[in-house]
Amino acid sequence: MRTSQYLLATLKETPSDAEVISHQLMLRAGMIRKLASGLYTWLPSGLKTLRKVEAIVRDEMNKAGAIEVLMPVMQPADLWQESGRWEQFGPELLRIADRHDRPFALGPTHEEVITDLVRREISSYKQLPINLYQVQTKVRDEVRPRFGVMRAREFLMKDAYSFHLSDECLSATYQRMHKAYCNIFDRLGLDYRPVIADTGSIGGSVSHEFHVLAESGEDAIAFSDASDYAANIEKAEALAPNIERPAPTQALTRFATPNAKTIAELHEQHQIAPTQSVKTLIVYGAADEAGKRGLVALVLRGDHELNELKADKHPLVFAPLEMAKEEDILAVVGARAGSIGPVGLTIPVLVDRSAAVMADFVAGANTDGEHYSGINWERDVTGYQVVDLRNVVEGDPSPCGKGTLQIKRGIEVGHIFQLGTKYSEAMKAAVLGENGKNQTMTMGCYGVGVSRIVAAAIEQNNDKFGIIWPTSIAPFELAIVPMNMHKSHRIPEVAEKLYSDFQAAGIDVLFDDRKERPGVMFNDMELIGIPYTLVIGERNLDNNQVELKNRRTGEATLLSIDEAVATIVAAIKG
Amino acid sequence: MRTSQYLLATLKETPSDAEVISHQLMLRAGMIRKLASGLYTWLPSGLKTLRKVEAIVRDEMNKAGAIEVLMPVMQPADLWQESGRWEQFGPELLRIADRHDRPFALGPTHEEVITDLVRREISSYKQLPINLYQVQTKVRDEVRPRFGVMRAREFLMKDAYSFHLSDECLSATYQRMHKAYCNIFDRLGLDYRPVIADTGSIGGSVSHEFHVLAESGEDAIAFSDASDYAANIEKAEALAPNIERPAPTQALTRFATPNAKTIAELHEQHQIAPTQSVKTLIVYGAADEAGKRGLVALVLRGDHELNELKADKHPLVFAPLEMAKEEDILAVVGARAGSIGPVGLTIPVLVDRSAAVMADFVAGANTDGEHYSGINWERDVTGYQVVDLRNVVEGDPSPCGKGTLQIKRGIEVGHIFQLGTKYSEAMKAAVLGENGKNQTMTMGCYGVGVSRIVAAAIEQNNDKFGIIWPTSIAPFELAIVPMNMHKSHRIPEVAEKLYSDFQAAGIDVLFDDRKERPGVMFNDMELIGIPYTLVIGERNLDNNQVELKNRRTGEATLLSIDEAVATIVAAIKG
Repeated sequence: MRTSQYLLATLKETPSDAEVISHQLMLRAGMIRKLASGLYTWLPSGLKTLRKVEAIVRDEMNKAGAIEVLMPVMQPADLWQESGRWEQFGPELLRIADRHDRPFALGPTHEEVITDLVRREISSYKQLPINLYQVQTKVRDEVRPRFGVMRAREFLMKDAYSFHLSDECLSATYQRMHKAYCNIFDRLGLDYRPVIADTGSIGGSVSHEFHVLAESGEDAIAFSDASDYAANIEKAEALAPNIERPAPTQALTRFATPNAKTIAELHEQHQIAPTQSVKTLIVYGAADEAGKRGLVALVLRGDHELNELKADKHPLVFAPLEMAKEEDILAVVGARAGSIGPVGLTIPVLVDRSAAVMADFVAGANTDGEHYSGINWERDVTGYQVVDLRNVVEGDPSPCGKGTLQIKRGIEVGHIFQLGTKYSEAMKAAVLGENGKNQTMTMGCYGVGVSRIVAAAIEQNNDKFGIIWPTSIAPFELAIVPMNMHKSHRIPEVAEKLYSDFQAAGIDVLFDDRKERPGVMFNDMELIGIPYTLVIGERNLDNNQVELKNRRTGEATLLSIDEAVATIVAAIKG
Repeated sequence: MRTSQYLLATLKETPSDAEVISHQLMLRAGMIRKLASGLYTWLPSGLKTLRKVEAIVRDEMNKAGAIEVLMPVMQPADLWQESGRWEQFGPELLRIADRHDRPFALGPTHEEVITDLVRREISSYKQLPINLYQVQTKVRDEVRPRFGVMRAREFLMKDAYSFHLSDECLSATYQRMHKAYCNIFDRLGLDYRPVIADTGSIGGSVSHEFHVLAESGEDAIAFSDASDYAANIEKAEALAPNIERPAPTQALTRFATPNAKTIAELHEQHQIAPTQSVKTLIVYGAADEAGKRGLVALVLRGDHELNELKADKHPLVFAPLEMAKEEDILAVVGARAGSIGPVGLTIPVLVDRSAAVMADFVAGANTDGEHYSGINWERDVTGYQVVDLRNVVEGDPSPCGKGTLQIKRGIEVGHIFQLGTKYSEAMKAAVLGENGKNQTMTMGCYGVGVSRIVAAAIEQNNDKFGIIWPTSIAPFELAIVPMNMHKSHRIPEVAEKLYSDFQAAGIDVLFDDRKERPGVMFNDMELIGIPYTLVIGERNLDNNQVELKNRRTGEATLLSIDEAVATIVAAIKG
C-alpha cells in the first residue's frame, strides 16, 4: 500500500476527550474515529489490525474443534423472556421495537439464541458434544461509554457456546478452550494471564478471565511468583496466617479519640499502627422470613481492604452488598461509623482471618469519640465467625500453596465459563440420552473481546512516540521510507524495487511515497507503530546500503541492498 | 471436516413457509435457520459459502484500489436529518432510541456516515480521489420479509463510496468499479448481466445494476442479441419503429361495444387485433402553480404495456404516477375507463412511439359503450406528443442500434451509482481545490448484496436433488463418501488416507464418516451441492480404484487411487 493512496489520517495533537493512552493513540494513529458516544468507525489501518486479531482468534477456534456460525444482531424478546434475562438485564440491553411494534434486543451476548438453535437442531446424545462460535458485532448500551473501543457500545466479539451431556465432557472442552485462548494470546504476542474469575451474572461455577497486563488495567490480578496460580483479586483467597494468635498481654482500656475516625487518623494522632488496629464495617444482613434486614459487622485489620465479592457471598450478608445507613447504625450500635468496634456488639460479627490472629489491638468502642485498646478475641469478644473477607496484598502466601502473591493490573480481554444448566434448564434444551431418556444439556461459554484486544495491546505496547505493535497484529509489518524521494533518481528506483520485492515475498508493506519531509514520515511510522522501517537515503546508497530501524528496540542496522529482502523477511516471518 | 463432528442439519422435508427454491434449499441443506421474521442464523455450511463470497468481493475491491473501513450499525439521527433522509425514508429505516432517549437509525446504507467521515478527514484535493468500502451487517425493517436471505431484515452488504473533484474522475472510478463487479461475478461462476438501471431514491445520474439471471428473478432485463447492451426493462428505451405511418384508408366510424371494456374483449367480441387497437390510460398531470392537478392521457398500442417509470418522468405527468380516479375521469372526459380514446380529448395526450405509427386503428369513443374504428393520427387527433411510454418486448430493436432485444429474468445483486453531489452538497463536504477555493466533492456509491448472492446463486444453480454450487463458493469443494465404512478394514484406511492427502493439498473437503447408509450420504452431499464426490467402495477397491462423481454433469469416473488426488486437485484448482 502506498501512503499517497491511503487514508493515513494521523493527527499531531492528542484529542482532548481521550482519557487513556490506547484511545489517544488509536485516534492519533488514524485507527478509529468517533461517530457518536461509544460508536467508532474503524479507519483502514485500525481495521487491518482488527482483522488480524480476528483471523488469529478464528484460526485457533477452528483448531480447537469449534464450528463457526453467524447469529443476528436483532434478537426477539421472547427468547430473553424465556431465560428470564429480559427482566434481569439492566438498561445495557438495548431494547427496540420493529415497525410492527414487536420487541427485540440488540444482542450483547447470544446464550438465548444459541440455546434455542441447539434445542431445535440437536436431538440425540450422538450429536454431542458440539461447540459453536461466531465473530460478530455486539451492542451494549453503556451508561457512560469511554476509553474508545475499550468500552464502546458496538464492539466485535468472538463468542462460543458448547453443549454436553456430562460435566466431565464440559470440563474437557473447557480445558481445550483454555488452551486455545492461551494459543491466541501467545500468537498475538501479548503478555497476559489466565486468572481464576468470578462467574458474575452470567452464572455457572468455574470461570477464568484472560487479562492483558498493563499498568492502566481496570482489574487487579494476584499471581504466585512460584506457580501458574493467578486470580482476579476479587477471587484470590487470603489464606489464614500461618501463626498462632498471641496470648493477651494488655487490659481492655477505653480512651478518648474525639478527632480520630479513620485508621489513618488513629495512626497520626495516637501512634497506633494500622496493623495493630481493626476497622469495622456495618452492612445489611440477609433478610429474615418477614423480609426484614438486620445488620452485620465486618472486621478487618486496619491496613487491609474489604473484598466486596467475598462479603457479598457470605450467607449472613444481604446481596448485593450494601453499607448500612448512618441512622440504622446509630439505632442498633449507638455510635457512628468511625467509632465502631467488635466489643459488645449484639449483631453478627464476621472477622477476617488476618484480623482473627491479632492480640492487644485497637478498635472503636461503639461510643462516639472513643476507642478501646488492648482488645483480645475470646476474652473481650465472643460468638464471632472467622472468614476470608479481604483483598489479598502483595507478599501474601499464594492460595495454591507455592510462593507468595504478586499483584499486577490487567485488562480483561477474554472470559470462559462452565455455565452448567442455567440456560438449558430455563429453555428446556434437552436431548435423548443413551438410556433413551431426555436429558438436559450442560453448557460452556467462551468470549473474546476482539476489538478490545486492539486497545489492550496498545495499553501494553507503547512509548512516547506512539504504538509498538507486536508483528502479528501490526497494520503493516514493514514501512519503506525513502528520504527526499522527489529530489533523486536513484532513491525512487531502489524504493520501488524493494516495495515490489517485499510485496512478492508476502510482506504487508506500507510504502511512504508522500512528498513529505523525512521527519514527518518517521514520526508517522513510529506513531502507527510499524515494527520495522526501512530507510532509503542517498548517503547509504553510495555504499549500496539501506537502514533498517526496529520500532521496539530502536536499533538501526545497515543492510546491503542485496541482502535486505531476505534478512527482513526472515526477521518478520521468522 | 468430518460430518460426525459437524452441524450438518440437512432436512428431508421442505419447510412449508419457504416459497422460493433458494430459501427451501438453504433450509434443507442446513445453511440457515430462521430466528424471527427476516432474521436468519447462518449455520456452518451456509456461513462457509457466505465467507467465500465475501472474500472474493473483498479481494476485487482491494485490487480496484478501494480501501476497507468499518462503520457502526447504529447511526445518529442528526446525520440523517442533515441529508434530509430522516424524513424521506420510509419505515424500512429502523429508528431506535438509546437509554438516554437519543434517536438512532440501524443503518440500511451508509452515505451519511461516510460523507461525515470524509468531510472531516479529507481537506485537500491532493487526497482525492478516494474510494472507501466496508463489508457489514445492514438492517432494513421490511414490511414483509420473505424469500429467506433474499429479502431479509439483517443482511450482509459490501458498500463502497468514492469521492472526487470532477465528474471525469468519478466516471473513471465508476468504470473501474464496473469492471471489478464483472470480475466478482465471473469469479463467483455466475451467469449475470450488468444492466443500465434507474437511480431511484438514492439519487444521481448514471447507474448500473448487476443481475444474476434466473427464471425466478423479480426483475425483467432486456438485452441485445448482438451487443453488450443490457438494461432493466424499466430503463430500456423502446425505439420509434423504423417505418412511415401508413396513409389513412378508412373513415372514422363509431360503433357500439357495450360489453367490451378491454383490449382482450375487443378482440374476442369484435375480432379487433390488439395490434390494431390502442389503450388510453388517464393519469394525473403535473400540478399547476395553484397546486391543482389536471389529467393526462397515455396512449399505447393494445398489445403493449405501460412503463410506469417512463411516464413518471414526463414533465406533464404528476410524480409519483397515479391512475386517475373514475369520478375525475367521468367529470373531464365524460366516459369511464374502458371507453376512453384519443379522439376529441381536451387534455394533453402522450402517444407512445409504436402507437404513433398506427393507422386505421380502434379506440374508445369517450362515450360509455362505444368505440371508434378507422382512427388516424393528424386527421382525427392533433396536438399530441409522441414519446417513449412502453416496456420493450422481445424482438424490439436494441436501443444500442445493434441486434434485437431478448428478455430474461434477473435477481439484482449489485448496484452502482454516479451519485454526484446529492449528499456532499446537503452535508457540505468540500475540499480546498487546486485553485485555493472550496469545492464540493462529487460521489459514487457501489453496493453488493453479499448474503443475497448466496440465494441468487442457488436460484440459478439447482436441480431436483438440491444445490449445484460453482466450485468457487461451494461450502466444500469435495466430499469423501466411504460406503459401509464400519463393515470394512480397507475402506476406512483408504478414506482416511485420501482425506488427509486432500487436506494437505489445500482442498476444502468434507469427510462423511457417519454410520449412515450410502443412499443417505449421497442424498446429503447432492442436497448440499458439493461439486465433487469421491465414492470409496469395496468393489472398486479390488481394482485399486475410486469413483469420482461430478455434481453438475452427473458424470461418474473411475480413478486409480494413486492418481486420484492429483486429478481431483487439478479439476478443482484448475
